[in-house]
Amino acid sequence: MKTAVIGASGYAGGELLRLLAVHPHFQVTAISAHSNAGELVTSVHPHLTTHNGEKFLAVSEIDFSDIELVFIALPHGESASLIAKIPSTTKIVDLGADYRLEDASAWEKYYGGVHAGAWVYGLPELSAGQRQAIAKESKIANPGCYATAITLGIAPAVNHVDVSDVVVVAASGTTGAGRSAKINLIASEVMGSLTSYKFGGVHQHTPEIEQAVSAIAKKPVKISFTPILAPMPRGILATITAKLNKPMNSKEAHDLFTKHYAGEYFVDVLPLSQMPKTGGVTGSNKVQMQVAVDEHTNRLVISVALDNLGKGAASQAIQNANIITGFHEGSGLSTDGLGA
Amino acid sequence: MKTAVIGASGYAGGELLRLLAVHPHFQVTAISAHSNAGELVTSVHPHLTTHNGEKFLAVSEIDFSDIELVFIALPHGESASLIAKIPSTTKIVDLGADYRLEDASAWEKYYGGVHAGAWVYGLPELSAGQRQAIAKESKIANPGCYATAITLGIAPAVNHVDVSDVVVVAASGTTGAGRSAKINLIASEVMGSLTSYKFGGVHQHTPEIEQAVSAIAKKPVKISFTPILAPMPRGILATITAKLNKPMNSKEAHDLFTKHYAGEYFVDVLPLSQMPKTGGVTGSNKVQMQVAVDEHTNRLVISVALDNLGKGAASQAIQNANIITGFHEGSGLSTDGLGA
Amino acid sequence: MKTAVIGASGYAGGELLRLLAVHPHFQVTAISAHSNAGELVTSVHPHLTTHNGEKFLAVSEIDFSDIELVFIALPHGESASLIAKIPSTTKIVDLGADYRLEDASAWEKYYGGVHAGAWVYGLPELSAGQRQAIAKESKIANPGCYATAITLGIAPAVNHVDVSDVVVVAASGTTGAGRSAKINLIASEVMGSLTSYKFGGVHQHTPEIEQAVSAIAKKPVKISFTPILAPMPRGILATITAKLNKPMNSKEAHDLFTKHYAGEYFVDVLPLSQMPKTGGVTGSNKVQMQVAVDEHTNRLVISVALDNLGKGAASQAIQNANIITGFHEGSGLSTDGLGA
Amino acid sequence: MKTAVIGASGYAGGELLRLLAVHPHFQVTAISAHSNAGELVTSVHPHLTTHNGEKFLAVSEIDFSDIELVFIALPHGESASLIAKIPSTTKIVDLGADYRLEDASAWEKYYGGVHAGAWVYGLPELSAGQRQAIAKESKIANPGCYATAITLGIAPAVNHVDVSDVVVVAASGTTGAGRSAKINLIASEVMGSLTSYKFGGVHQHTPEIEQAVSAIAKKPVKISFTPILAPMPRGILATITAKLNKPMNSKEAHDLFTKHYAGEYFVDVLPLSQMPKTGGVTGSNKVQMQVAVDEHTNRLVISVALDNLGKGAASQAIQNANIITGFHEGSGLSTDGLGA
Repeated sequence: MKTAVIGASGYAGGELLRLLAVHPHFQVTAISAHSNAGELVTSVHPHLTTHNGEKFLAVSEIDFSDIELVFIALPHGESASLIAKIPSTTKIVDLGADYRLEDASAWEKYYGGVHAGAWVYGLPELSAGQRQAIAKESKIANPGCYATAITLGIAPAVNHVDVSDVVVVAASGTTGAGRSAKINLIASEVMGSLTSYKFGGVHQHTPEIEQAVSAIAKKPVKISFTPILAPMPRGILATITAKLNKPMNSKEAHDLFTKHYAGEYFVDVLPLSQMPKTGGVTGSNKVQMQVAVDEHTNRLVISVALDNLGKGAASQAIQNANIITGFHEGSGLSTDGLGA
Repeated sequence: MKTAVIGASGYAGGELLRLLAVHPHFQVTAISAHSNAGELVTSVHPHLTTHNGEKFLAVSEIDFSDIELVFIALPHGESASLIAKIPSTTKIVDLGADYRLEDASAWEKYYGGVHAGAWVYGLPELSAGQRQAIAKESKIANPGCYATAITLGIAPAVNHVDVSDVVVVAASGTTGAGRSAKINLIASEVMGSLTSYKFGGVHQHTPEIEQAVSAIAKKPVKISFTPILAPMPRGILATITAKLNKPMNSKEAHDLFTKHYAGEYFVDVLPLSQMPKTGGVTGSNKVQMQVAVDEHTNRLVISVALDNLGKGAASQAIQNANIITGFHEGSGLSTDGLGA
Repeated sequence: MKTAVIGASGYAGGELLRLLAVHPHFQVTAISAHSNAGELVTSVHPHLTTHNGEKFLAVSEIDFSDIELVFIALPHGESASLIAKIPSTTKIVDLGADYRLEDASAWEKYYGGVHAGAWVYGLPELSAGQRQAIAKESKIANPGCYATAITLGIAPAVNHVDVSDVVVVAASGTTGAGRSAKINLIASEVMGSLTSYKFGGVHQHTPEIEQAVSAIAKKPVKISFTPILAPMPRGILATITAKLNKPMNSKEAHDLFTKHYAGEYFVDVLPLSQMPKTGGVTGSNKVQMQVAVDEHTNRLVISVALDNLGKGAASQAIQNANIITGFHEGSGLSTDGLGA
Repeated sequence: MKTAVIGASGYAGGELLRLLAVHPHFQVTAISAHSNAGELVTSVHPHLTTHNGEKFLAVSEIDFSDIELVFIALPHGESASLIAKIPSTTKIVDLGADYRLEDASAWEKYYGGVHAGAWVYGLPELSAGQRQAIAKESKIANPGCYATAITLGIAPAVNHVDVSDVVVVAASGTTGAGRSAKINLIASEVMGSLTSYKFGGVHQHTPEIEQAVSAIAKKPVKISFTPILAPMPRGILATITAKLNKPMNSKEAHDLFTKHYAGEYFVDVLPLSQMPKTGGVTGSNKVQMQVAVDEHTNRLVISVALDNLGKGAASQAIQNANIITGFHEGSGLSTDGLGA
C-alpha cells in the first residue's frame, strides 16, 4: 500500500519512517518535509539508512492520486490546508492536534486559530466502541503522547474515583519537546536536571484528555496536569492519582485494571511487584502500568510508561492505520522495548 | 572546632567531607566508616583529594573527648548505640532518621525496631520558632531530602489549602538511593529511564513530612507521596498540589510565597516566569521553588528543587551545625549551584 | 527452526531474545539462564513482553535433540562443557570468547584456563573469503563488540598503513560491562563521567583483533588499545589511527573505504561531511564509519560506531546464524538505528 | 580587588561568576555580556543566585578606570578591540584564544583574521619557568580546555617518547561546545550517544598544544588530535599515547610522572590502581592523571581528566589571576570535585 509521510523531519516523522521500513504492508513512496525539501533524508535522520540517497519532497511534488495512505506529522494548525490537496477517499492518520478536539472553543483557547474539525480519536484501547469506531473511518486523529498515557491510565478507574479532581504529574523525554534548536533544550541545560514547564494547568493536552476520559466516564472530568522535562531522549512516565469513591485495596485495584485490559495486546498491567519503566518500552508500541491504593489517603495511584515517539505518536499512528486498512492491528509493531 | 564525620563512606558522608574541606570553622579530625575502616578515604571517594593519604577509622579508634562536633550519616537504627559513646555535651547533627519522629508508633511502622527518641527537627526555614528552637539545642535531627523539599514547598500554603489531602510526586537522582551495588541501580538500568518506587504510599519520609507540616498547620496533615527515580546523579524535583480553600490567582499565590520566604537566604521563590531546575542547585544549599494556581481545577501547584545531597542532607546539616555552634548560619555554604 | 538461547539473563542474551521475537525463521523454544532458572524471563528483562509468563530453564531441562540452532551467551570458559551436551550436527553461534582465538597461548595469557579450540570467526564483512568460510560451517565464534568495530574500521587500510603500530581509543556504553551489581557500574558513579579501564594494553579483545586483522594484512598486526566507559547504555565509538605508508588525502582515503564496503548491507562509510554517532545505530545491525587523513601528522584516522549489543553481539550472531542456516543474511535484522 | 567579567553569558563566564562569588579577594563589580546587556544575570544563569537582581552591562557602561582585574571570556577575535578600552596597567586574564599563539601564521590558518599578538601562556604547572613568567606579567593568555589536559599529560614524558608523533583522542562534555542553540547540541541528539567532530586533524587547539609542548621539549612536537563529544555536561578525558624512545615499565613511568608533579597542588598523578574520572574533578581546579606502559606496543599511555569549565577555563583563569595579583595561588579554588 503506497504510503506518504508528511512532516517527516521531526522526531515523530523520523520514527514513522523507522517503523514503516519494516512494515509488511505499507510502502513509503513519498517523504515530505517543507523546510528540508531537496535535502537528503539522512542529512536530518542519519540513522534511517533504509532511505540512503532519498530526498525530502515538497508537498507540491507529491502526486496524491497515487497514494493510498497518508501520515501527517505537522505542527498544529497546518493539517487542514494539506488535506484539501488529498483525495477525499485517501486514508489519513494525523499525528498532530488539529482534529482531536470536538469543542471549537477549547481548540481556540489552547491552540489559537481556526478549529479544523474533529475526527475519530485514534485510541483503540479506550473502549470496545472506540476500536469499532476507528475501524469504520478513513481519517483518524492520532492522540498526543501525554494524552495516551494519562487517558489509558485513568480509564479503568473512572467509575471508582472522583473524576472531577484527577491529579497528574508526568515527565517526558526531550524528543517530546521537538527537534528544535532552543537554548533550554541543549544538552548542557538538560542533562542531569529535571524541570517543570507549562506550569499551572495550561498544557494543551488537558482538554484532549478530559474529552476522552469524559466520554467513557459519562460525566465531566477535570485534570490537574503538571508536565516535567526529564534528562532522557524518550519516554513518558505519568503518575495519576484520584480519590477513591469507596475504599478498595491494592489487590482489588490491580484486579480491576488487569481485567480492564485483559484482551489488549499493547497494554500491560504489570504483576504487583513490578513497576513500569520508560526504558522498558522504548521503541515499542507498549503501554505498561501499575496501580495501587494509598490507603493512608484513600487515593488510587497509577503509574504509566510509554515511549512518547512510539505508542505516544508513531507506532500508535501505524496501529490506527493497520485498523483502518483492515490489516492485523499489530502489523509491523513491536511489543518488546529496547530495555537498555 | 574539631569535627568528626561518622558514616563517611556513603554519598551524604562524602558530600559532608567535600563541604567541610572549605568550611572556615569546622576542622575534620576524624573520619569513620565501619566497613571501610583502614581503607583510604580516596579509595571510596576519589574526588576528595583534600583527604589524600588519610584513612577511615573505626568508631572505636576515635577519642570523642577531643571532638566538639559530630556529624552522623549512618543507616537508620544505628545512631543510638553510637551516641552512647559520645560525651553528652558534644554537639551532634544526625543526618539519619533515628531522631526525626516524635511518634514511636510511626517509627515502628515505617522503620521497624526500637524508637530512639526525638530531637529538634533541623529545618530552620520551617518557622521563626523552629530556627530559635534549633539554636538552643546541642543535638539536631537533620531532615530527609524529600522531606525538606516537600515541607518547605507546602509550608507557606498551609492556611490556604486542604492539608488533609496533599498530593506529592517527587523525583530524585540516584545518589538518593545510596552507594549500593544493586542491579536496579546500575547505570545500564537507570540511564535514559524513569521509574517509580515505594509505590502506593509507603515511603518512610511521609510521617516526617506530616509531622513537620502538621506542626505549623496546627491540624493533621495527610500527604499522598509517590517517589520516582530519575536518570541523574543528584537533585530532587517535587511537584506538590492541594485544593485551595478559597480561590486565589497565581499572582496572589506567588506573593504569598515570596513574602513567606522573604528573609530566607537559602530559599528562593523564583520570579513568575522562571521554573526551578535541579541542575541549578547542584552542590549548593539552595531550595528554589515556583508556585501557581491551576484555576481550571482550583488547585495550588508548587514545584520545588534542591540537591538531595546538599540542602537535602549534607549542607543542611552544616547549616544546622552553624546555628548550634553560634557561627553565621551560612558559613562555608554556597548559594550558587553548579548550573551545568 | 527451533532455537535455544543459553545464557539469556545478560544484556546480550536479552537482545538476542528481543531480536528473535521478530525473526521470520528462528523460533525460540528454550531460554536458559543458570542462576535464574525457574524465574520469569520478565523478572530479569521486563521489556521482553513477548515472553510474558515464560521461565528460564536450567540447561539440564533442555532437550537439545529437538533444537536446531543454539545461541550461547555465557561468560568465557563455560562454552565447552555445554557444547558437549549438544548433538554435533546442531548449528551453534557462540557469542562468548571461547572459540575465537586460534592461539592457545594467547587464550591462556588473556583469559586463563584451558583453550577450548577455535571456530570460524563470524565477521562476514572481514573479507569475501570469510563470508564463504562462515557459510560452510555449523559452529561460529561470534566476534567481540570492540573487535568488530576495530577490525572493520582498520580492514580497508591494511595495505596503506603501518599495521605494526595501530592506535585505538574506543568508548563503550555500560551494557558492555555486563549486567552486574558492582559499585563502579552504579548510575551515580557513571552518569556524567568518563573513565578509562583495563589501562595499559591489557584488554582481552586485543589478540582477537590482531588475529583477525593479521589474517587479511598477511603480516603481524599490533594494536595499542585503550578502552573507555561512557555514560550511555549502548554503543561503541572507536577512534583508530595509524601512520600512512605513503601520503594520501582524505578524499582518496574515503574512496578506498567506500569501495571496500561497496557491497555490504550492514557497513556504511558515511558521506564525507557526516560523522558516525552511536545513537544512530542503536538497536540495529549497522556499523557506520568515517575516515580522514590528518595531513599534519600523515596519519589515517577512522571513526567507527556500532551498537555493542547489536552488530557487536546479538544481531551479528543472528546474521551469522542466517548465513549458516542458508536464510537471507539480513533476515530479521534492522538497518535503521533508534536515532534518539 | 575590583573585578570585571566580560563575556559572562557563556558557560565559562558563568563558571567564573560562580567561583568568584566565594573568592576571598576578588570582588565582581561589573558583569558584561554584549547581546544580553540589560537582562538579569539570573535570566541566563539561574543558578547564580549571588547575583539575584543584577543585570548584564554593555562594555560601554563599565568604567574601567575603577577596575583592577578583568577576566575576558569572549569569542575569539574580539579581545583586542576590548583591550584597547582598558588602562594598560590593569591586570587581565583572557580565557579566549586571541593571545595564545606566538605564530601569526598559525593563528591565521586555524582561526582566521588578524593575529592580536601573544601573551604569556597561563599554564603554571607547565614548568617552574612558566609559573615565574606568569608571576611577572599583568596580562595572561589562559589556555584552552583540551590544551590544558593534553599539555599537562604529555609534559613529563617529552624526553622519553617520540614527540613528533603523539596521538590524542579526547572527549569533552557539551559545555565545551558553548551555550549555543544548535540542533546537533540539543539533548535529544546528544544524550546516549558519542560522536567525533573536527575530524581529521583540524582542531584549533592543536597549534596551541604543539607550541606549549615544543617549548619544554625543545624540539618540534606534532600531535594527531581527535576530539569527541560526550553525553555529559562537563569534563574532558584525554587519552594520549606516544612511542617510547627506550623501554620503560609502568612503574617507572608512574614514578616519572609522580616526581614531575610532586610539588603541584592542582595536579594529581593517581595511585597505580586508580583511573582518573571526569566526575571526580567536576567544579574543581584539579587535573587527575594516570600513566602506563603498553609493553605490547612499546607505547606510553596517559589518561587525563579535568573539568573543561574548571581547570580547563574558569578556575585556571582565577589561578592565573591569583598569581599575577600576588595572592595565594589556590585562593578561592577547590581541590575536591563534586564526585557524583
